[in-house]
Amino acid sequence: MNQNHQPLVHGGDWAGYSEEYGTQPLDFSANVSPLGVPQGVKQAIAAAAETADRYPDPLCRSLCRKLAVHERLPESYVLCGNGAADLIFRAVLAKRPQKALLPAPAFAEYEAALTACGCQVEYYFLREENDFRLDEGFLQAIVPGIDMVFVCEPNNPTGVSSPREFLLRAAEQCSRCGALFMLDECFGDFLEEPEVHTLKNDLAEFPNLVILKAFTKLYAMAGVRLGYALCANSQLVEAMRQAGQPWGVSSLAQAAGEAALDETAYVERVRQMVLQERPWMMEQLTNLGLRVVPGEANYLLFRCPVPLIQPLRQRGILLRSCSNYHGLDENWYRTAVRTHEENIRLIQALNEVIR
Amino acid sequence: MNQNHQPLVHGGDWAGYSEEYGTQPLDFSANVSPLGVPQGVKQAIAAAAETADRYPDPLCRSLCRKLAVHERLPESYVLCGNGAADLIFRAVLAKRPQKALLPAPAFAEYEAALTACGCQVEYYFLREENDFRLDEGFLQAIVPGIDMVFVCEPNNPTGVSSPREFLLRAAEQCSRCGALFMLDECFGDFLEEPEVHTLKNDLAEFPNLVILKAFTKLYAMAGVRLGYALCANSQLVEAMRQAGQPWGVSSLAQAAGEAALDETAYVERVRQMVLQERPWMMEQLTNLGLRVVPGEANYLLFRCPVPLIQPLRQRGILLRSCSNYHGLDENWYRTAVRTHEENIRLIQALNEVIR
Repeated sequence: MNQNHQPLVHGGDWAGYSEEYGTQPLDFSANVSPLGVPQGVKQAIAAAAETADRYPDPLCRSLCRKLAVHERLPESYVLCGNGAADLIFRAVLAKRPQKALLPAPAFAEYEAALTACGCQVEYYFLREENDFRLDEGFLQAIVPGIDMVFVCEPNNPTGVSSPREFLLRAAEQCSRCGALFMLDECFGDFLEEPEVHTLKNDLAEFPNLVILKAFTKLYAMAGVRLGYALCANSQLVEAMRQAGQPWGVSSLAQAAGEAALDETAYVERVRQMVLQERPWMMEQLTNLGLRVVPGEANYLLFRCPVPLIQPLRQRGILLRSCSNYHGLDENWYRTAVRTHEENIRLIQALNEVIR
Repeated sequence: MNQNHQPLVHGGDWAGYSEEYGTQPLDFSANVSPLGVPQGVKQAIAAAAETADRYPDPLCRSLCRKLAVHERLPESYVLCGNGAADLIFRAVLAKRPQKALLPAPAFAEYEAALTACGCQVEYYFLREENDFRLDEGFLQAIVPGIDMVFVCEPNNPTGVSSPREFLLRAAEQCSRCGALFMLDECFGDFLEEPEVHTLKNDLAEFPNLVILKAFTKLYAMAGVRLGYALCANSQLVEAMRQAGQPWGVSSLAQAAGEAALDETAYVERVRQMVLQERPWMMEQLTNLGLRVVPGEANYLLFRCPVPLIQPLRQRGILLRSCSNYHGLDENWYRTAVRTHEENIRLIQALNEVIR
C-alpha cells in the first residue's frame, strides 16, 4: 500500500473496507441510486468496449445532442466532463479566481479545486438552527472582489434547498459583482419538483451562471464518470473545454450516458423510492432520538452523540462521517437513502449501537 | 452542432469524419495499436460495468499494486490518471511553474496544460537537418528560471529518441536548475529495446523526475482513458493526486488496466508487427519521393509538398496534418503504422494522390 497519501475525504470507500474486511460493505456513505447500474447502460458499456481502441470524441457530439434534447436547451450550452468534479476543476482553471465564496458545509471538491489553483476561499457558515439554509447574509457576502461563488442545490451534505427566487437573487448579485455563479444541481433530480427548482431556463439571462449536473447519482453511474455543465456563455464554455485535456470523457462514458437518457422508467422508479423512503428514514432516525436535518435529496444529515463509524463498519455498513466538513463536527453523519430492506438494516444497526 | 469550439488540434477525429461521410474511416491519424482492444480487456470492462454504481477507488489500490509489479518499482511510485493527458495537467497544477521549456515540435498537451495554468512557455526548436533530435543546445537551454521541462521519448510526432546518457544529463541539468523534468515515455514500449532506454530505474536518484506512461497506444485503449505517472518523490506524487478530482480514473478503466497487464501475448504481437511494418512503410514512403524522418515508434513523420488531408479523406483515410505543431508546417504529416493490409491501402492511396 501507498502510505504517503492524505486521508480520503469522501464517502464511498468500499475498496478500503474490502481490503480491511475481505468482503463488500453495505454502503450508505455514497449518495447513489440503490437500484444499480441500469441494464441498458451496462449493455452500452460492453458494446462500446469493442471500439474503445479509438480516442473518445473530444466534443462528445452525439451525447451533447441527446443531452440538449433531454434538457430542452441549445446544444451549445452543454459541456461534458469526467464527472461533475472534472467540470469544477475546469471552471476554476478557466476563471482563475483570486477569491471565492463557499457556503459551509458544502461539497469538498469546490474548496479542493479552488485551493489547487491558488484561490483564497471565504466561507459563509450556515446556521444549524436554520437547518443550514442559505439566507440573506449569504447574498450580502457576495461583494465586489468575490470572483466565484459555489452553491449546491439541494446542498450536500444537508439536503436542503433554497427557493428559486433566492437563487435568482444570488445569480443577480453575482452578475453585479462580476462573480461566476456555479450552481451545482447534481442532486436536483431527487427533489419532489425538479423543474420548478432549477435555474436552467434562466441561463440565457445569466452569462455568469454555470449549472453542474451528473449521471453519477440518478443513474447509479459513479464508477463510469460522467457529468455535464450547462452555460449560455459560449466563451466560458470554450474556456472550460480548454482548461483540461481534450479526451476527458471516455468513449465508454459517452455511450453509457446516451443509453442512460433512455432509462426513463428507471428514473421514475428510483425517484419514487427515494420520495417514499426518505420520510420513513427521517421518522426512524428521529425516533432513535437523533436530530435530523429535513433534507430533500437522496440522503439525510443527522447528529448523533455516539460514535457510529467503527461500530457500523464492524456490522458491514459504511456511513459518512461529516467531521471533515467546515461548519460540522464529529457528531454529524450523512446517510444515503437506499432500498427499504437496506434502510431497515441501517436503522437496526443504529438501534444496536445507540441504545 | 456546437459551432463555437476551437478547431481540434489532434488526430483521431473519427467522429467528425463519420458525421461528414456517414461511414467509419481507416484511421492513420491516431497512434494506437491496430490490433484492437484485447479480448481480456473487453471482458474486464463488461464485468466492471456491473458494479459501476460504486465510486471508483480513488487510490486505484489494486491497479497500482499490479502496475508496481509490472514496472518492478515500489508501489508508492505509481499514480494513475485519466490518460497521460490528465497527469500532464496534474503535474503542471502541482508545480505551478512560471516558465517552462518545450522542444518543438512536441505533443500539444504540454503547452495546453502550461498555458491553461498561466505559465510562460519557451520553445527549443529541433532542427530538421538533424532529424529533429534533441542536442546539446537543448541542455544549455535548461537554465535557472526554467521550472519545468517536458521531453517525449520517442518524441511525438517525430518518433526519434535520444540516447539514455543524454536523458540522464537532462535530468541532472533539471536538478541543478530546480526544474521538474517530465519524461513522457508513452511510446517507449514501441522501441526495439524499451528497457535500455527508459529512465525508470533512475527515479530514486532524481526526485525531480516524473515519467509518464499510458495504456492508450500499446493496448489500444485510447477510448478507455488510462495512464500513469512514475515518480520517487512521494510529496510530488501526493501533490499531483491533490491537483485534480479524487475519482479521475473510472472503475471501468481500473479494471481494464488490470486485465491489460495480463495481455503479454498481445503486446508481443503488436510490438512485432510495428517492428516489421515500420521499415516497410519507411521504404514505401521514401520510394514515393517523400522525406521520412527515421522514427522508432508506431508512427512516422514525413514531408510531402502535395496536400494530402482532403484527398485521403475522400478515400476514407485519416492522416495527421502536422501544420499546427510549432516548428513544422503544412507540408508535414504523421502516419500511424498499422497492419500490413491497412498500410498497403495507405500507400496505394498516397500513390494515387501524389503521382
